[in-house]
Amino acid sequence: MKWFRFGPEGHERVGALDASGQLRDLSADVPDLHLPTLGLDGLKRLSKLKPEAYPLVRGQPRLGVPYTGISKFVAIGLNYADHAAEAGLPLPKEPIVFLKATTCITGPNDPVLLPPSSVKTDWEVELGVVIGRTARHVAESEALSHVAGYCVVNDVSEREYQIERGGTWDKGKGCDTFGPIGPWLVTADDVPDPQALDMWLDVNGVRRQSGSTATMIFGVAQIVSYVSRFMTLLPGDILCTGTPPGVGMGMKPPQFLQEGDVMTLGIAGLGEQRQVVVTSL
Amino acid sequence: MKWFRFGPEGHERVGALDASGQLRDLSADVPDLHLPTLGLDGLKRLSKLKPEAYPLVRGQPRLGVPYTGISKFVAIGLNYADHAAEAGLPLPKEPIVFLKATTCITGPNDPVLLPPSSVKTDWEVELGVVIGRTARHVAESEALSHVAGYCVVNDVSEREYQIERGGTWDKGKGCDTFGPIGPWLVTADDVPDPQALDMWLDVNGVRRQSGSTATMIFGVAQIVSYVSRFMTLLPGDILCTGTPPGVGMGMKPPQFLQEGDVMTLGIAGLGEQRQVVVTSL
Repeated sequence: MKWFRFGPEGHERVGALDASGQLRDLSADVPDLHLPTLGLDGLKRLSKLKPEAYPLVRGQPRLGVPYTGISKFVAIGLNYADHAAEAGLPLPKEPIVFLKATTCITGPNDPVLLPPSSVKTDWEVELGVVIGRTARHVAESEALSHVAGYCVVNDVSEREYQIERGGTWDKGKGCDTFGPIGPWLVTADDVPDPQALDMWLDVNGVRRQSGSTATMIFGVAQIVSYVSRFMTLLPGDILCTGTPPGVGMGMKPPQFLQEGDVMTLGIAGLGEQRQVVVTSL
Repeated sequence: MKWFRFGPEGHERVGALDASGQLRDLSADVPDLHLPTLGLDGLKRLSKLKPEAYPLVRGQPRLGVPYTGISKFVAIGLNYADHAAEAGLPLPKEPIVFLKATTCITGPNDPVLLPPSSVKTDWEVELGVVIGRTARHVAESEALSHVAGYCVVNDVSEREYQIERGGTWDKGKGCDTFGPIGPWLVTADDVPDPQALDMWLDVNGVRRQSGSTATMIFGVAQIVSYVSRFMTLLPGDILCTGTPPGVGMGMKPPQFLQEGDVMTLGIAGLGEQRQVVVTSL
């Protein structure tokens, strides 16, 4: 099942794609897609609904974050060997973990705001993993049974804030609009192998990133298991799992986002995002 | 006004201290102390209530986190010059910012769990600053008008996870129970000068930390202003502002928490905490 939410920010309604990929409005029977309340079992029950039986979504409404109830936005750094190389950093021996401020979360096609005076805002297409069941010290063999589904994430990053301003990466990862999520929450049963998904990102129509989740250093099961040893993951929490090569910081010379740039990005089977870059007020 | 919440976890009721320091049950008129809903103005309205008019809290119930609605738990590192020296680290040129996973939040006197196989769990008494009004790119001169109040925080830290496991500090800062908050949310009008508060922490009755918020490198107004440039702070968000000298990591030889240890800590005017250290299951 591919779930989404549509409508103005704060007033989204729940929908799902039908078998032919058309958007259907399920809000008559699904008032909200709040994962902390639903959990994995609730989501599975809802996934028995037949989108074909519901009205088509009219027009081209805004798409929101595809579900609600994200208490933690956990991110993994340098999880693709080629990306570590372009960043000039050694391969991590264990996953690098940081947190994105939840206030950065935004819809998949909402504008991305350049922070005032930012000169090094960069892109990162990533596989997002959505937790469906509380995970605390979960074994790797059990980790995937805690996953509700997957989605596209753009882990937008301000490299000066992240690297040159002292302290941890969090400073450059959680600015407002730095966490577009969606368009779909694709339930895990619709993703046969999360380690075999092609992914790409274009800036102004020029391909900048292309890769596959097949080349992750630490796979989804390892990541969920590992992070659950350091913090309890709750239903609705989302982990983004690192980016393949091709970020602006790694270009020679480095190239960063400017007002008016357009990012388009996607992951096979999980849909596409499109963000216009605007200057923050 | 000194607000608190009392009762079993997940079923807390709202109370406030009366003029003689007795605990009063205000739940008949204050069903919850949810800062995102109340905001600073709502909290100010509630602070006109007279605790003396309400029944005494009976017995010695558990104290919970003194308010609800914490979406972000932001922390500042190395914000006392003496503590930076004991950690063997240079003085930061600008605030070091990291995030504590919100799942670490716990009541002021709840047990602190040693993570499985943890050998370097450490203590940090800190001034907590509670946001009452949305803060985004706030000037230093305006920052304190966004503060709802103050409280005691123990920024419990696993030093091996924080420093020796690769990546950012977040790994060692957000384990379950690593964020005791309370006992009171002391409204800002009851804290004449947040930069003149004595603070202390004992382990098993032996004084380990003693200091004053007077020796912060970056003061509360600077911190709120600074952090608001990197992420929008929402009502209910809490910032802990760094710890004075005397952590276990800085002792010669270093000394860390063991099962059965008791931490007691407090800040002048903000109350005291007491945590028993237990092994995580």
